[in-house]
Formats: sequence, structure tokens, C-alpha cells
Amino acid sequence: MSVSPLKVGIVGLGTVGQGVVRVLAKNADVIAARAGRPIVVTDVSVRTANAKRDCVLDGIRVHATPEAVVAADVDVVCELIGGTELAHDLILAALAGGKSVVTANKALIAERGNALIAEANARGLSLAFEAAVAGGIPIIKVLREGLTANAIDSLAGIINGTSNYILTQMTAKGQSFADALADAQKLGYAEADPTFDVEGIDAAHKLTILASIAFGTPLNFAAVATEGLSKVHSQDIQLARELGYRIKSLGIAKRSEHGVELRVHPTLVPDEHLLAKTDGALNAVRVHGNAVGQTVYVGRGAGGEPTASAVVADLIDIARLNGAKPVVPALGFTAAALATQPSLSIEAVESAYYLRLTVADEPGVLRALTSILAEADISIEAILQKEPEDFDDARIAIITSVISGSRFDAALERIRALPFVRADMSRLRVEHFE
Amino acid sequence: MSVSPLKVGIVGLGTVGQGVVRVLAKNADVIAARAGRPIVVTDVSVRTANAKRDCVLDGIRVHATPEAVVAADVDVVCELIGGTELAHDLILAALAGGKSVVTANKALIAERGNALIAEANARGLSLAFEAAVAGGIPIIKVLREGLTANAIDSLAGIINGTSNYILTQMTAKGQSFADALADAQKLGYAEADPTFDVEGIDAAHKLTILASIAFGTPLNFAAVATEGLSKVHSQDIQLARELGYRIKSLGIAKRSEHGVELRVHPTLVPDEHLLAKTDGALNAVRVHGNAVGQTVYVGRGAGGEPTASAVVADLIDIARLNGAKPVVPALGFTAAALATQPSLSIEAVESAYYLRLTVADEPGVLRALTSILAEADISIEAILQKEPEDFDDARIAIITSVISGSRFDAALERIRALPFVRADMSRLRVEHFE
Repeated sequence: MSVSPLKVGIVGLGTVGQGVVRVLAKNADVIAARAGRPIVVTDVSVRTANAKRDCVLDGIRVHATPEAVVAADVDVVCELIGGTELAHDLILAALAGGKSVVTANKALIAERGNALIAEANARGLSLAFEAAVAGGIPIIKVLREGLTANAIDSLAGIINGTSNYILTQMTAKGQSFADALADAQKLGYAEADPTFDVEGIDAAHKLTILASIAFGTPLNFAAVATEGLSKVHSQDIQLARELGYRIKSLGIAKRSEHGVELRVHPTLVPDEHLLAKTDGALNAVRVHGNAVGQTVYVGRGAGGEPTASAVVADLIDIARLNGAKPVVPALGFTAAALATQPSLSIEAVESAYYLRLTVADEPGVLRALTSILAEADISIEAILQKEPEDFDDARIAIITSVISGSRFDAALERIRALPFVRADMSRLRVEHFE
Repeated sequence: MSVSPLKVGIVGLGTVGQGVVRVLAKNADVIAARAGRPIVVTDVSVRTANAKRDCVLDGIRVHATPEAVVAADVDVVCELIGGTELAHDLILAALAGGKSVVTANKALIAERGNALIAEANARGLSLAFEAAVAGGIPIIKVLREGLTANAIDSLAGIINGTSNYILTQMTAKGQSFADALADAQKLGYAEADPTFDVEGIDAAHKLTILASIAFGTPLNFAAVATEGLSKVHSQDIQLARELGYRIKSLGIAKRSEHGVELRVHPTLVPDEHLLAKTDGALNAVRVHGNAVGQTVYVGRGAGGEPTASAVVADLIDIARLNGAKPVVPALGFTAAALATQPSLSIEAVESAYYLRLTVADEPGVLRALTSILAEADISIEAILQKEPEDFDDARIAIITSVISGSRFDAALERIRALPFVRADMSRLRVEHFE
């Protein structure tokens, strides 16, 4: 066993980078005992020389440019600067220099990972990205190595902490989306420009990675359909609760004989399911395999040390190899076995639906509604009618049977055209995880 | 990349063995795509030649003795017969023959694993046992490879499905332990002799394995303290619910500066914790690491295919090595780094307590009780007094502050000696997972 340390260079010393330095320092003994050799940070790059940092840099060479870290005498480069241009070039340069790479960059892996992985493969190097999805949950390792006996049918996850925090606040406090978002921004849980999180793009990046490993397909970010949180109204959260559901923003990947579907959207989840009970900034992923059945994984999705936990686990994997080629393919399937599968358009995706309508409180409303649904072969699984309070309109909330998006939307067009149906309505998908 | 198949021999074709044959057959393509080579069962041994089996044995050599499988031309032997004598000798023989071993045998690994692992190490072979703990949850992989960046502080798990099924039924139906056990036996969820499951021995085997990997200590089954389920009365389940808790049989491992504690016992868990919500035959494990915080893993703990999922994942790990030595140490720490740590006696273990007393309904009872607790420096976190119904005695349920077992039991002796305290009492530990 070699006892030479694994030399690590870190590009980007933000929250996660500082967490990595801290975890490698505080757990140095246990990490060396597991890895078979010490893992030491020798080089870092920082954007601002004198920024206040929550980690000790004694004995570490501090560079002003990321390129200097990539060029340094290190075995592994940790890319923790984010973004998809500079990070991409730095990773390529590191691989070209014979260095393995660990990254937390979900956008980069989801959008440009296929080529980067091919490059790492060609050079017999590791490109590891456990930290890119659900920080504290080792979900990539679980899919890539733990559940390998299974044909994975589906997975669904709360994989964006900001969205889950906002929905949890809306549920607990009855807040509107706008108010909950404003609070989250005040507390630092949401960015000034929250688009990436609340419109589902961040979750779509993560889902792209999970689905690829689950199904053995090349990364295909373009195939993910997204719907944002802004369409969730507090009255929907309340009506859903009365019907026995919570609203969660889920990333969902399913595979059937018709193809692969990838989607991120607010989703009604039955109260009693673990995903419904995953609140606040926690992440949770449900994986269903054809041997194991349903398994669920819960942990912190973000934060310096939970994410560092994943980065350092990847470093330990690399340290254990002791210079040998990676044993486990980056996407869990051998490069030769990865195969594109037909992807289902969101219109073709089948799911149950929640429909909330505002209607004039007059006779015949339910009959007209139910006729349209029956003609479209849509069953009503549950219905809740709320009588008018201080205005003349009633609210109706319906949970439907499973139906394709296009057929549901066609029926919805007919409903929308009914004279007593108001413009204020809401349509969300429902997942039962049976 | 070699494309020669990995040849597997299976010793013991019971529920799990049949599951392995079935999963390897039905998922052959996806398994080969992940492993980089096909995995094929070439040899099995059966006890009864013509038993009815739920798997296809076409093209597989069927032997009458396990020894014949070990001697056959296979790369890996799957030991699935259970027991600790013959299984032990078969594994040694397989290793001596240069064959890696996969086993689901928790008792064997917990009780005699140190020597077997040393033997496998000495020969550069794999000895893998993911299936030994929590079948469908890849918890060994998670601890050994996923959370390696962490010093693990504690873990706690529902790791015996039979116990959890019985407690779930007692909770849902208000059944007594004896009735719930009888039902479980009728349904095949409990053995005719249920000792192994309901007295916590099976869970202790599993906890031994988890703790060793979490803390980097040699396997030490003798260090586990166990308490069985029979001491849980249905009135305790009811009182616990009123106080905001569920009773679960947990395997708990903690490490502090004082040493390692390992215990299996019925435990009050706060209602809102995921472990409290894990019902029926499901397993769940909570792991707390000093970087990642709390993570929770949920899945089926037993059954042919969930357990086969773990066995086959181990086979895929071995297939991926392509004949090279294992990269990951069997217990997650290098053999040289494994170190015995002082173990805490159950008397020294600190926890909160639930105490249910039956007392004469007379003045001064609470004052006498609370005086004894106060003198022992035990705070009362919650108290519930139930007035007498059709008899003269009242019931009092108390949740205490955290206190060592010896100090709590000393106070309990004084309480027991009070003239108005009846013999019918119950004392259970409480975990808050903060």
C-alpha cells in the first residue's frame, strides 16, 4: 500500500471549497484510515486574496488564478467555481495534465458531461461528481454501485432545497409564493435572481444526471420538461391538504416501453409518503427498482459541509485507487453500453392531475364538468367543492385518474370554454408512487 | 476490458438464492452493461433435489453438496445457506481455492467475520456482505464509500423487519405482544421460534457490522446489549403516542470520548422523525456524520429479491474489478487502521427514559416520585397521569432527561420501594436524535 498522500488542488474557495478544506482537516485521521493514505490540499485558487474565510490555509499554496492550481503538482483538481465555460476548460486542462477531477458542478455535468466523461475515460482518469446532486445524500453512489442489480423503473426527488423551503413555508404559514420567496431571499436560502431554483432549472440539471445513471442513457438535459413554482397558489396547498396531499417540487424520471420521461414540476404527493414529509431545506430521493422495490434516501441537499462530504468521498474513492484506472464507470454503465432511449414529450407523459376551478355558483356546473371528463375517459378519484364565502364563486378541486398530458389539456380546453368557469384555475400533476 | 463472464456458484437455493438466480436472469442485460461483462450462475447446490422453486435452472449445474459448488470452476461463491459452522468452513474453502465470496450471513460476519476478512485480505480476494444488513438498502456501501468523509457520531436503525412488523401491528390494532407475534407467525413474518428476531439478536448481528464500518473497529458482537420486545405492553404504546412518540425496536451505535456503545432495544422515537414513520416490514437506518449531519435510508429489509439486489450488487462490484484486488476494504478502514475502542457498558450508556408506573390513587404520590427523581438529578421532560378507570390504581408516564443507566436504575429502585408503587411498571429508553 502506498502511503504517499493524495495531493489535491481546489479551484474556487467559496462555501463548498472552504467546507472541503475544513472537512479534510478535521477528519484527516479517519479519512487516511479509510483511504489508505492521507489526502492533503496543497493548492487553492481564490478570487479575492483577503476575503474572510472559515477555514485554515496554513501550508497550502494560494494562487490568484484557477489555471495555476490546474498546473500545480497535484493528483486531483476539485472544480468548485461553478459556471459552464471556465470550469469546462479547467477540467479539460486538468485531464490533459493527467489529473483526475472532482466537481460539484451540476450544470456543467448535465449540459456538457458526455464529452468530459469521454475525455476522462480516454485518459484512464476519474471524473467524479457525487456533490453535484443532493449534497449530503450519496445518491450517485447508490445508483451507480448500490442498486446495480436492478432495472430502475423510476426515480423522484426533492432535489432543490430552495424550492422545498419555499413550499414548506407556504404550507406551514399559508404564505403566498411571492412572500415565501421574499422571506427565503432575506434569509439567504434563495438568490436575488431565483430563476434557476424556482423555475426548476437547477433540479433539471440534477435530474439529468440521476436519470442517466439510473437508465444508462447519455446525459440529455434538453429532454427535461420544467414547470416553476410560481404557479402554485396558497389555496392549492390548502385544497391539496384537504384532499390528503402535500405539494412538492419533484424531479421525476420514469422509463417504460414508450420511452424515458424527465420532468420537474410542482407535484401533489400523498400525505403519508416520505417525500411529503421531507420539509425545509432537506433533499429526498425515491428510487424504484425491479428487484428492490421502493427505496428512499434523505439528507441535507446543500451547505458547505454536507456538499464537502460528497466531494471528499469522491477524493477517497480516487485515493483508494492508488493511481489505477477507475473501476466504476462515471455513469454506472460502461461507455459502450450507454444507449440513447426515445424520450417522451411532456404531452405524452401520463400522470394523475389536480385541477382547481373557480366557477359560478349555479346549478348544472358539476354535471357539465363531469360530462367533459367522462367523454375524455378521465375518472374523478376525489373531488372537493368549497361553497362561496364572501364572493359569488365556488371552488372545485378534483384529483383525476392517470391520463396523458395532451388528453388532459384537451379536456381542460373544453372546460375552460364553459360559460360558468372563471379564468382563475390551477392544474398540477399528482404522483401516487404505487 | 475483458468480456469473459463472471462465473458464480450459489450455495443454498432458498428464498434469497432463488432471488439471485431470478434477478441475474431477468436483468442480465442491464447487469452486463453495468458490470462490463456478463454475470452467470454456473453451479448451485440444493438440499432437496426436487423441491419446488421459483427460478429457472436451465444450463446451471445442480449439485447435491455445497462443497461441490465451492470446488467447481467458478470465480465467486455466494454463501446463502446461513448458520455459522458449515458456512464458515465453506467460505474458508472458497477463499483457499482463490474464489471471492459474497454472503448474506449476518450472524457469521458479526461473530466470525474478523478472521474471514483477514483471510480474504491475505489472498487479495473480495469478501462482500451487503446483503447481511437491511437487504434492499445499500447501507454498507453508503457507510463504507458514501459517507467516508465523515467521522460517524452515531447510527440508529430499524433493522429487524419481524420486530417492526409486530410493533406496527401492536400500534395500529392495540394488540398485545403475544397476539401480534402469533399473527406474525401465522403470516410467516415470524419464525416458530421467534427468539432471534424478537429478542434483538438478529438486529445485534446487523448492528455489529454497521458499527464496525462506521467507527473503524473490529467486529465485536459481544459488545452489543440487547433487550427484547416482550417487555413492550400495548398500554406503553398508547401512552407513548399520547406523549408524542412511537415505540420502535432500534439498533443504536454511538461513539463519544467515553467509548462506543452498541445496543438493541425497544425505543421511544419522536412521532415526527422518519424512523417513527417506518412501518411494517420496512427497514430504515439513520446515520449522523460530523460533516453531513443526519441522513436516513429506507427500504425493504428482507425478501428474496430485495436481498438478492444486495447480493448481485456485490457480484457486480467483483465483476468490475476484473480479477484485480479489491479497492475498498471490507470494513471501510484499512486492516491496519482498524482499532478496538473502549466499549461502554449498558449501565454507563446515557439516554432519556420513559417510565410507566402504576400507583395507588392517593395524595403525595407525585411529590414522593418527583423528590426521588430530583435527588438523582433527573429532570422530568414530560409527564402524563391517567386517572383510574375501573380499578383503584392510576398510571403515570414520565419522559426523563438524559441520564446514565446505572443512575436511572438506582432511582428506579428507590421508586420501586415506595409503598404506593405497584409491581406493574415499564421502563424504556427514549432517543430524540437531535
